[in-house]
Amino acid sequence: MSDDYGTLYVVGIGPGLPADMTQRAREVITDADCVIASNLYQEFLREDGTLPPEGEAGDDDPEIVRSSMGQQVELTREAFERVRNGEDVANVSGGDPNVYGKSDLVFTMAEEDDVTDVPIEIVPGVTAALGGAAMMGAPLSNDFCTVSLSDKWRGWDEIEEKLRAAAVSDFVIVLYNCWRNYGRAIDIIREERADDVPVGIFNDAGRADAGRNVDGETYTVTTLGDADAHEEEVGGMGTSILVGTHETETWSNDHRTHLVTPRGGRDVDDF
Amino acid sequence: MSDDYGTLYVVGIGPGLPADMTQRAREVITDADCVIASNLYQEFLREDGTLPPEGEAGDDDPEIVRSSMGQQVELTREAFERVRNGEDVANVSGGDPNVYGKSDLVFTMAEEDDVTDVPIEIVPGVTAALGGAAMMGAPLSNDFCTVSLSDKWRGWDEIEEKLRAAAVSDFVIVLYNCWRNYGRAIDIIREERADDVPVGIFNDAGRADAGRNVDGETYTVTTLGDADAHEEEVGGMGTSILVGTHETETWSNDHRTHLVTPRGGRDVDDF
Repeated sequence: MSDDYGTLYVVGIGPGLPADMTQRAREVITDADCVIASNLYQEFLREDGTLPPEGEAGDDDPEIVRSSMGQQVELTREAFERVRNGEDVANVSGGDPNVYGKSDLVFTMAEEDDVTDVPIEIVPGVTAALGGAAMMGAPLSNDFCTVSLSDKWRGWDEIEEKLRAAAVSDFVIVLYNCWRNYGRAIDIIREERADDVPVGIFNDAGRADAGRNVDGETYTVTTLGDADAHEEEVGGMGTSILVGTHETETWSNDHRTHLVTPRGGRDVDDF
Repeated sequence: MSDDYGTLYVVGIGPGLPADMTQRAREVITDADCVIASNLYQEFLREDGTLPPEGEAGDDDPEIVRSSMGQQVELTREAFERVRNGEDVANVSGGDPNVYGKSDLVFTMAEEDDVTDVPIEIVPGVTAALGGAAMMGAPLSNDFCTVSLSDKWRGWDEIEEKLRAAAVSDFVIVLYNCWRNYGRAIDIIREERADDVPVGIFNDAGRADAGRNVDGETYTVTTLGDADAHEEEVGGMGTSILVGTHETETWSNDHRTHLVTPRGGRDVDDF
């Protein structure tokens, strides 16, 4: 049956620029018959030649379908049909499709509609926690967790419980979807963790000058006690905030200021 | 001063095969004057042409230095000197350098030796949690955390506290360094989380047939209550174990069995 089928790929392109995309993500998009992508990601993919310039698509180039937040259900149903008709479809997700991306929705819809015939593949990518940590040095080099501050699908009681547990037990915490309520999250963490632990607020990690958020690819090093005073650094979906632990340190060389969390507090003699 | 310096890059190559490496990681390695890499990663990098075949290096190819676990301190000191002499050095880390990789050690040593002149850059990569999750479907599509089971640099009291906090507050948990004591970790999580929550044991995510761990790139879907009975699936450093939450479900189509954690428990009507 499925010999004549294509595959539905959910493709993580990382921050969106070619340098931090995997080779597999790029190939899947280039080889697809149809690419579903937001305007922003289309622009990124055109900039680096993964997609042809607008209006210059040749016969071998994929058909581009514009994706938008409210249309995910319809687009996924359309994608199922395209795959049944033999097309390879690349549904483009920023970062990694599993980390607050599209992969769960695709499987949830397949289950809901009893779509068992369509092959689905997830292509991983560099998520903001990793890209932002790399930009700042080594702040994530111990157990870490991610918490989304979006309350679209759940209440703040759940978000608060997770923040509190992570703060008490010394996870490095990376907050996603900070555009609203980040102050509330910081307040909760402050109840459990010292005010002098380092915090990094980062924007558009890996996007360099193409960043659309605040001032493009930047980060600010502050502390938990002062994080609330940096509202101007917190923009749209491109902002994440990393809250260090009591082991996290700031360290500056002649080039910049870094955040470092030594793994298990290890030092050089102990390695 | 540093105009004549090179840069010390700590480069995450993901699982090690070219397809899941970022373009930037590949370019940094290809353009480096010196590449520090373990025998296994050298082999991966030679297989895909990022490094030339053994014994066939040309004048433009990087010098290869073999890395091994016990030598990290000496190799990093050597790297600092090479950068001062104008070389670009790529220190290759599997996965992402921040996630139980080498990046904290490099900064800790720079601080210890007061090496403020050497530019250090971290190049992020796809870590096992993301690569493994992609292979299994969408198990990570809600807040998640990583916990290393290595007690080389800390005691089990800290590991246990983190596991317990993560289990109580419903994080998806990805265990790294499972080769010993994974049974102990599972026992702790079982005290806080139901025995029927799905668990994925995965090996060599993204390494396809090149995997060296157990049977190469594979995953097994089981439950928390039965995880202990899968000792034969748990190999060396290439094994990770993902413990789902009460929202995680298994879902099979005609092709394979997946793990899915709907974000915030969302369903299709709610999107």
